[in-house]
Amino acid sequence: MILEIADIRVLPGQQAAFEEALQRALITVASQAQGMLGWTVTRGVESPERFMLQIVWATLEDHTVGFRQGPLFGPWRAIIGPFFAQAPQVEHFELVGKST
Amino acid sequence: MILEIADIRVLPGQQAAFEEALQRALITVASQAQGMLGWTVTRGVESPERFMLQIVWATLEDHTVGFRQGPLFGPWRAIIGPFFAQAPQVEHFELVGKST
Repeated sequence: MILEIADIRVLPGQQAAFEEALQRALITVASQAQGMLGWTVTRGVESPERFMLQIVWATLEDHTVGFRQGPLFGPWRAIIGPFFAQAPQVEHFELVGKST
Repeated sequence: MILEIADIRVLPGQQAAFEEALQRALITVASQAQGMLGWTVTRGVESPERFMLQIVWATLEDHTVGFRQGPLFGPWRAIIGPFFAQAPQVEHFELVGKST
């Protein structure tokens, strides 16, 4: 199980439109990807143009190979790309521990 | 409900010791804070010295006032502070949406 965390900055004034587009892209496109197990979208309090998108993948390769190099990536990026103020910063994480 | 995301970089070679210390600090100190509802710790795949600590708080002030300005912050920072390679980057987030 791998957690993708994407740190996204959107263009000024585009937050509401981005929230709608991102959730639409998640539901209609990314959720079809193999190994895509769930997602969460949060909006910054101190930085309202900042969003953290978190996606749980079964394996790292489900994201980096299957999704990024597969046929869903074009439609996905077409929906959310126009809102980006800069390239999102994306890294992957492994679970260390969590509260019960 | 507010999500705190702390982006933490630890000193080289200190990852295993930090994982133990952070979970101990969460369980024995931070979990006592009012409004502290749960936590998750993840370790970077591309950046193995990077940890993302996520804590769910009932309100923003439970973290920024109650915890940071209260009696638990000293013991908390004493346990985890020695591992930091730099000051953690901490911001707060509101839920936009999540998968069902």
